[in-house]
Amino acid sequence: MFKKVLVANRGEIAVQIIRALHEMKIEAVAVYSVADEDSLFVQMADEAICIGDAQPQKSYLNMQNIVSAANLTGCDAIHPGYGFLSENAEFAQLCADCQINFIGPSPEVIELMGNKSKARSTMKDAGVPVIPGSDGMLSGLEEAKQVASKIGYPVMLKAADGGGGKGIRRIQSEMELEKAFVDAKREAQTSFGNADLYLEKIIEDAKHIEMQVMADKHGNAIYLPERDCSLQRSNQKLVEESPCVLVNEDERSQMGKTVIQAVHHLNYYNTGTFEFLMDSDHNFYFMEMNTRLQVEHTVTEEVTGLELIKMQIQVANGDQLEVTQDQVKIDGHAIEVRINAENPAQNFQPSPGILEDLFLPIGTLGVRIDSGVKSNSIIPPFYDSMIAKCIVHMPSRKRATTKMARLLTELSVAGVKTNQFFLHDLIEDAKFETADFNTKYVEDHFLKEWQANAK
Amino acid sequence: MFKKVLVANRGEIAVQIIRALHEMKIEAVAVYSVADEDSLFVQMADEAICIGDAQPQKSYLNMQNIVSAANLTGCDAIHPGYGFLSENAEFAQLCADCQINFIGPSPEVIELMGNKSKARSTMKDAGVPVIPGSDGMLSGLEEAKQVASKIGYPVMLKAADGGGGKGIRRIQSEMELEKAFVDAKREAQTSFGNADLYLEKIIEDAKHIEMQVMADKHGNAIYLPERDCSLQRSNQKLVEESPCVLVNEDERSQMGKTVIQAVHHLNYYNTGTFEFLMDSDHNFYFMEMNTRLQVEHTVTEEVTGLELIKMQIQVANGDQLEVTQDQVKIDGHAIEVRINAENPAQNFQPSPGILEDLFLPIGTLGVRIDSGVKSNSIIPPFYDSMIAKCIVHMPSRKRATTKMARLLTELSVAGVKTNQFFLHDLIEDAKFETADFNTKYVEDHFLKEWQANAK
Repeated sequence: MFKKVLVANRGEIAVQIIRALHEMKIEAVAVYSVADEDSLFVQMADEAICIGDAQPQKSYLNMQNIVSAANLTGCDAIHPGYGFLSENAEFAQLCADCQINFIGPSPEVIELMGNKSKARSTMKDAGVPVIPGSDGMLSGLEEAKQVASKIGYPVMLKAADGGGGKGIRRIQSEMELEKAFVDAKREAQTSFGNADLYLEKIIEDAKHIEMQVMADKHGNAIYLPERDCSLQRSNQKLVEESPCVLVNEDERSQMGKTVIQAVHHLNYYNTGTFEFLMDSDHNFYFMEMNTRLQVEHTVTEEVTGLELIKMQIQVANGDQLEVTQDQVKIDGHAIEVRINAENPAQNFQPSPGILEDLFLPIGTLGVRIDSGVKSNSIIPPFYDSMIAKCIVHMPSRKRATTKMARLLTELSVAGVKTNQFFLHDLIEDAKFETADFNTKYVEDHFLKEWQANAK
Repeated sequence: MFKKVLVANRGEIAVQIIRALHEMKIEAVAVYSVADEDSLFVQMADEAICIGDAQPQKSYLNMQNIVSAANLTGCDAIHPGYGFLSENAEFAQLCADCQINFIGPSPEVIELMGNKSKARSTMKDAGVPVIPGSDGMLSGLEEAKQVASKIGYPVMLKAADGGGGKGIRRIQSEMELEKAFVDAKREAQTSFGNADLYLEKIIEDAKHIEMQVMADKHGNAIYLPERDCSLQRSNQKLVEESPCVLVNEDERSQMGKTVIQAVHHLNYYNTGTFEFLMDSDHNFYFMEMNTRLQVEHTVTEEVTGLELIKMQIQVANGDQLEVTQDQVKIDGHAIEVRINAENPAQNFQPSPGILEDLFLPIGTLGVRIDSGVKSNSIIPPFYDSMIAKCIVHMPSRKRATTKMARLLTELSVAGVKTNQFFLHDLIEDAKFETADFNTKYVEDHFLKEWQANAK
């Protein structure tokens, strides 16, 4: 097993990785920016090296400095956490070139899944359902009509080089398609210098359902119970839970078979998460794969009893998976919310500063709070503004919700604004009780009402 | 359901009771001594009333002031927590007289089980195995010889009015009994003014195994998985765990049947715990019953998923138990240690003071820390010196132990001494790994070695 591992991250995830390493009797080396020199994760590590200025580019994204720090301290391996360099193929390659074990998948697979178009076609080849649409670019209106009538209206007509919400048209009917096609082509040419168009089905009222896998280097892989991460704002997850109460055992095992098929197709090792849209008929469609640990892996740990960071380290070390699929059980229900230093009353503007008198309501059955700060710690303006992940795990979703609501009332901090009461009200919302929400619910419904009431 | 409940306790248990009340949408009233006015439990309560000076007799044992506070604030009920007035029949009666619901059993049963000799004979009547011995007082040497030869040597010859380790003789053989009997009688007469003697078998190499029950006012009762609390020093529990790995399913259900029999015999309601000695042949013998919540109820909550404080409140309210015996399952393994402000190097002398820079290692799977303090809180010299209960709950005892050892390394506090490293070393002791310890292990073996190594 590795003797010493460098943690190429900061905040709460650095803390949790250091703890996993310590429980495995592996030394932990922290790297930090000048903004983080008094941070908890720096204090907890066995060694700590400053790798640059506060700006991420100069520190946590500074590959050369990180690899140098690993060499300097004699580390066997690097754990990238989430964010920063965790899905950077170049970094994974650099580690390999320097004979340092990157605790993640191969550079090739990071590269492949990082490209959305390549990921889509690879998944299609692997037999994973993708959003129905044209195979690549449309040759003309006739093909567009054929594809659209096959997948069914409404559809989305997209410019090949569009993006960021531009070059996209929602098409309700064949008549509309006939009218719009030439315009869309011209607009694509004008806006992006490329007139190529393609078509995709619109998945209405979809939930964000994702499934995490753990795979070793010997071809063994398991899938873990799905997570429902549909409550989002600006594509940021607000609440994550496992299992999804609307997914039944057959659907779970179907999704599981599918992702394991994909894992084998990719020769994938490490943990990874397949993100799907699930429509109201419970069809699921691949969106993307995260080739790293995710923030919300905690709820999966809670319901399965597995320690995913440790398993990641073990498979990176070349160990065989110790857990087989039939040993993976779902025990109760877990919910996570992310407490951020931000101001919901001002469009969730970040609220960095000193956490004066931070009180995290630890204690009682089923409560877990993963945090990288303590009272008087600083939330610097340079990175994400997370204060803590509050996780509850109870025998039932109802009891988990009750506990979470109490937690979000009791938590307190001065010196910064937080989203705690916004999350509290979201958890207590009637739609939450029935899990009757999709990815648009917060932005299209809840948020407006909440902001109106807040005034 | 009750609208408002007074919490007649302090520290961590007051905090946990307030949380249970809040999750049940019941208002919580705290009472506190002048030494506790800045305490967390006072801040968390909806109302708080000072009931007297720091000395327990003047505040937390001051029945009149507590009942007055309940009346003044319009409370329906009083939760006594553990310690203080929780097993005081007079207080339970006073509550009844004042039409306040005491969250505990009837005054009669508190009285009965508080008297060790009455408790023993009542349990014997109920079919609960008690330590074999004479039926009441010995008529003379002949009866003593008969009883001793029946139960087997060694035996303990005890003065009826002895206590505190006095008036007790260990007898190895009939010859010794013949020699000692007259002396013992004379000594009992001289020391206690009562020459009555009785005999009890000595249970060698015994474990302290206890079983908690929950019973409603309608005759429904369940037993919960046993706890092993054998690691003690000066009759104080140091480490508690559930289940006991040496108790098998048959033994568990046998013990369970026995305690439920006792519950029915007593017409008992509320939670309660039957404490047993278990010898190396797994025979178990009643020691005493605690007619209240215990400090270590947490490990039972963890392995069963039940919230015992809430259930206590529900049954006090007259609700039917919602859980049946076949719904009680054991999930994994839980261990608790008590972090105290005390100095193990100086015979565990209390070390009250300010908790400067308290860091409780919250976070990661399976960790629960129940505490009534935060950084800069005070541990006053007037009460017990508990800082926190660290509880781990993992799928296996081995994984729970690994996690606890890491926790006890990471925890830190300045300003007071703690027993954290003593507990750490105890958890990492080879005897702990195999659960091969009895109630004498710490005092007769571990402590001496530990103190020698500490020098």
